[in-house]
Amino acid sequence: MRAVVMRDWELRVDEVPDPVPGPGQILTRVLACGICGSDLHMLRHGAELRARDAELTAEFGTDPNAMQPITFEPHLDTVMGHEYCCEVIGLGAGVSAVSEGDVVVGMPVAFDADGIHTVGYSNRYPGGYAEQMVLNADLVLRVPDGLSPRLAAMTEPLAVGVHAVAKSRIEPGDAAIVLGLGPVGLACVAELTMRGIGPVVGADFSPRRRRLAEQLGCDVVVDPREQHAIAAWREIDGQRPLVIFEAVGVPGMIDAAMRMAPRDARILVVGVCMQRDHLFPMVGIGRELSIQFALAYTPDEFAGSLHKIADGAIDLSPLLTGSVRIDGVPSAFDDLADPEEHAKILVEPDARG
Amino acid sequence: MRAVVMRDWELRVDEVPDPVPGPGQILTRVLACGICGSDLHMLRHGAELRARDAELTAEFGTDPNAMQPITFEPHLDTVMGHEYCCEVIGLGAGVSAVSEGDVVVGMPVAFDADGIHTVGYSNRYPGGYAEQMVLNADLVLRVPDGLSPRLAAMTEPLAVGVHAVAKSRIEPGDAAIVLGLGPVGLACVAELTMRGIGPVVGADFSPRRRRLAEQLGCDVVVDPREQHAIAAWREIDGQRPLVIFEAVGVPGMIDAAMRMAPRDARILVVGVCMQRDHLFPMVGIGRELSIQFALAYTPDEFAGSLHKIADGAIDLSPLLTGSVRIDGVPSAFDDLADPEEHAKILVEPDARG
Repeated sequence: MRAVVMRDWELRVDEVPDPVPGPGQILTRVLACGICGSDLHMLRHGAELRARDAELTAEFGTDPNAMQPITFEPHLDTVMGHEYCCEVIGLGAGVSAVSEGDVVVGMPVAFDADGIHTVGYSNRYPGGYAEQMVLNADLVLRVPDGLSPRLAAMTEPLAVGVHAVAKSRIEPGDAAIVLGLGPVGLACVAELTMRGIGPVVGADFSPRRRRLAEQLGCDVVVDPREQHAIAAWREIDGQRPLVIFEAVGVPGMIDAAMRMAPRDARILVVGVCMQRDHLFPMVGIGRELSIQFALAYTPDEFAGSLHKIADGAIDLSPLLTGSVRIDGVPSAFDDLADPEEHAKILVEPDARG
Repeated sequence: MRAVVMRDWELRVDEVPDPVPGPGQILTRVLACGICGSDLHMLRHGAELRARDAELTAEFGTDPNAMQPITFEPHLDTVMGHEYCCEVIGLGAGVSAVSEGDVVVGMPVAFDADGIHTVGYSNRYPGGYAEQMVLNADLVLRVPDGLSPRLAAMTEPLAVGVHAVAKSRIEPGDAAIVLGLGPVGLACVAELTMRGIGPVVGADFSPRRRRLAEQLGCDVVVDPREQHAIAAWREIDGQRPLVIFEAVGVPGMIDAAMRMAPRDARILVVGVCMQRDHLFPMVGIGRELSIQFALAYTPDEFAGSLHKIADGAIDLSPLLTGSVRIDGVPSAFDDLADPEEHAKILVEPDARG
């Protein structure tokens, strides 16, 4: 099949073997798969991350408490893409929970006799930047009738925001600042809005992304070149307990969040910075800040996100700013470096046009 | 009076004007004042800290939510020392709450018509590395009869540990690792013991400090050159929710705590690192760690610490490893760089010998 392959930290469009479903697994056809910023970061900084994983493994061993190292071999083929919506086109042995023709989404995890694998960061289980995928029948969720595959593919990024908001322990009566209004920041804005939490101040360089945040319920948006997010918050509130969501994920952002934070503020780090970063502990000490790092989501949060989208609790369609076929993925990665143009680009292998 | 003066980031023993109590204030004679590691850090890194404060003030203004900048002028005299026990020797106008001859401790704060001042980091209110101090009558606590001034002076450092433990939200059933067994780390160990929380693993290079930690109730102590604290914890537990107390306060320790932390661990930063530091966000993200910074204590925690010491709930006398008169303070600062020799050195201006 045709797929976008990462090999030696470079992307290329190539032919790879068709995946074959094992017992309890299903073969699927990719309908839509969002391009995630983490994949851009992985391509650019994966080698550095892998070196650090090796360092940690050498220092602390591979016990279950140690950090999960990157589980793919970078010199072998890896097909990324973990925000997928697929149609079932074949059943492995013993599968009865789903049928051919079902449209499904699922958390990017697969298991087999050898253990658990991370779909999209695995040499064995190709992700959604490909024509076909193999998934576990027990791990997928059927997409409710009437929900388009394009919106269903937004389940995963919404779940990231749902989880980040839950992990922040923010409550009605608190205020929020969201730094970075890419898909992750926008998912946080969406979930904050759905929970009735506000005011929410959003900050991003891109006017288009700021408009999207407003559409999702952000009370105030700022261009950080023109106004500090914290100044905007002080104008409209300045009193409530504050959570700052760091959804940019580049070095310097944790420091920036700490510097702007008022006393007792909480910083929720949901941006995925894979590089070495810096901070000034005294800034945190002087204000008794806390920093909570968040990753992924629980199965409940994933399922809940699908149903929020299906029920129309939130309309994420404005976030879908682009669509490419498989051949277009490498240039879409380049386009995503320009935030003015895009929020979420979907890979739609069979899209017309 | 004779005092240890910090001027232009250097210590010298000098004569300074006798302090004069204003309305509501008292004149006291210093009986004992502990030398705090923060004062060593301030002497060495205060200039850097001040530059950063100025930067933050320029960026965010001086509104009440911004970080409290260092409030003393470094080219003027500052007398440090905020862990003091004093005898009242004079009363300002309108004071009735205390009498001459009372022995008192207090949070290092003073107020007057110009506002609030940080005793020990102020050009106006000398701290306890001096013969006399002026304090507010309403802010001091009488030391219970029978408690020595030397142990009463341990109220402040114990309160730092009490607050750090409270701020960590650690509960019975959780486990703790304490990195750094200087006075702050030992205060954390003492409070954890008093709360019945365990196992507690302590780590320090110094055999003497490790012995002190054991005396205070640490279940296991390790020399980090020989065994990782996390490995020691795994040997005796490895299962409970874990809080790692960072009580060293030098660059690299937050990173070290993050690297060793298991998934969902909480890191409580109570060590006072005044320099730029580094971290790898992905280590925190991959394990969903949280970092809580802690500073100082509440009035209740301070009063509670005095009473814990007075009631004999904990015996901190083994921590008192040295005593100097005012002339000996500069060399005591040097001695404290060698952790093998000392935990807490007290300044006792009138001590014999």
